[in-house]
Amino acid sequence: MADGLGWGEGTAHPDEDALVAHLAALVDGPAPGVLRGIGDDAALIAPDLVWTVDTQVEGSHFRRDWSSPADVGWKALAVNLSDLAAMGAQPVAALVSAIVPDGDASDLEPIYAGLGACARTYGCAVVGGDVASGPGLALSIGVLGRIAAPPPGRDGARPGDVIAVTGALGESAAGLAALRDPALQGLGGVEGCIAHLRRPHPRLAEGAVLARVAHALMDVSDGLARDLPRIARRSGVAITADLDTLPVHVPVRDVAHRLGVEPGVLAATGGEDYELVVAIDPADVAGCGVPLTVIGEVLAGAAGVVWRGTGAEAGLAGWDHLARRAPNP
Amino acid sequence: MADGLGWGEGTAHPDEDALVAHLAALVDGPAPGVLRGIGDDAALIAPDLVWTVDTQVEGSHFRRDWSSPADVGWKALAVNLSDLAAMGAQPVAALVSAIVPDGDASDLEPIYAGLGACARTYGCAVVGGDVASGPGLALSIGVLGRIAAPPPGRDGARPGDVIAVTGALGESAAGLAALRDPALQGLGGVEGCIAHLRRPHPRLAEGAVLARVAHALMDVSDGLARDLPRIARRSGVAITADLDTLPVHVPVRDVAHRLGVEPGVLAATGGEDYELVVAIDPADVAGCGVPLTVIGEVLAGAAGVVWRGTGAEAGLAGWDHLARRAPNP
Repeated sequence: MADGLGWGEGTAHPDEDALVAHLAALVDGPAPGVLRGIGDDAALIAPDLVWTVDTQVEGSHFRRDWSSPADVGWKALAVNLSDLAAMGAQPVAALVSAIVPDGDASDLEPIYAGLGACARTYGCAVVGGDVASGPGLALSIGVLGRIAAPPPGRDGARPGDVIAVTGALGESAAGLAALRDPALQGLGGVEGCIAHLRRPHPRLAEGAVLARVAHALMDVSDGLARDLPRIARRSGVAITADLDTLPVHVPVRDVAHRLGVEPGVLAATGGEDYELVVAIDPADVAGCGVPLTVIGEVLAGAAGVVWRGTGAEAGLAGWDHLARRAPNP
Repeated sequence: MADGLGWGEGTAHPDEDALVAHLAALVDGPAPGVLRGIGDDAALIAPDLVWTVDTQVEGSHFRRDWSSPADVGWKALAVNLSDLAAMGAQPVAALVSAIVPDGDASDLEPIYAGLGACARTYGCAVVGGDVASGPGLALSIGVLGRIAAPPPGRDGARPGDVIAVTGALGESAAGLAALRDPALQGLGGVEGCIAHLRRPHPRLAEGAVLARVAHALMDVSDGLARDLPRIARRSGVAITADLDTLPVHVPVRDVAHRLGVEPGVLAATGGEDYELVVAIDPADVAGCGVPLTVIGEVLAGAAGVVWRGTGAEAGLAGWDHLARRAPNP
């Protein structure tokens, strides 16, 4: 679960917002016991329980010549755990729905080996699932997580906050570029970018800490250029952000230069970062216990994001799974 | 979630049991807070919370010339609610993962209309989900349900119990046969069978009652011929059942005769009944508050099911989604 309105992680349907609003109305009904539904990275099912789902489809989200089945299994769970991190939750359990091509279940063993490795790494039980036959390989994983307190969500950013991110951005985008163009694989450190694309590490520990201090919190799965406007819209605030302040490692900068793209643009639009972005009181940044890089600020004004810095004038576009396009190809 | 071991509702992989045991070992890990995992119709996540998932794939589970998109949406949720019924649970919430063919989301509106109708009928909130692009249409729905007490599960059948079922069997099988052969659609009452195939009604009210008195409880999704052995194996008991005692409505009997199949065989093997089957003390059958038909008994002996009655000598085979076969074609 993922998109700004809770539908369509990584999907960029042209009328997605309208589609989402329409679908939500169609399924509107009684919700006894549901505390917070569509709108954040996960639904709040009970005071201490959040729930999310995410699907990885061959051809849209992964290619078998670029990721091993074990990588696919790892990532299918990890991207869900990233949604839990965005709620400040710790993993409880996962249910796995697999669709295998034409009934051929032979890839499930290595897929589950990778999935199990991720589950053990992050302390998530796998409690069951189902296997169905279909035209292509797909993994849909639902996860439940436990929270200690109501998470900030996406709607709490307020004027005076700063926008900050964990870790660094653009690794997966650089890794994807290197898989597309093997000539880039000779650049120092690019193998780490490829590893990040194949096996992202959800920021669960950081999310648990940030959920206690941040005013708004989400994970960066579609790229800041698409994810930051979701905070702005949900919170009803203006956000200014600076491409030149985005945390970018050397191999990402090098890949960007070889692609003829500004590093900040690659970092903002690449997607699949699985870092966390927060709106937070500037006084809490240094002492919150999680290393953060401030990349913008929250202002009163029309809800939306204004990008500054090198490359911003050309406009930014995010990752687009639904159209099977990749950024900056 | 569904199969005898919690993997593969409606899938009949030739080595499914071995596959399942193998996959379960691969994902084995810490399960803090999980009370009961793989093995029943749903996992027990907290003392009052159960969780299940089921996937419907175009071509394997439905055909668009036989079911409208609204039917597909209804059924995708209903089959999950049937798993909740088997745990004696009441629906709390659903998360919907949709894969749409090549990014074409145009069918999602009618699908969600049907899904929403089912959700409202049974009091289940839809709290979010995701949409991805893939080679074909698929819906994977996870549901959470609330229980008042630990459900019987599949492992509680004991010698001296009788085996009993709710409602009637074979409706969906007869409906499928009539969709395949329009000549059968002239038989009286067959339209009701087709409606049952397209929009099954989960036995939620019955499940809540039976969970309090039955020793073992599950839903009949793959046909009694496949589902009853799951109770026998998990409970370590022998079960004898009689094809001639299965509750069968007139149109099912008529379709069976036209197909040259014994009605009891069609009823036992057809699948998609979404009735409940219980092992229960014979003294509790009459007064339990749910109309039941006794169709067998539980004995001490080698774990397994012995079928008696007309047609039993020829052997029985269940529904097989993974191989895309249908019973008695």
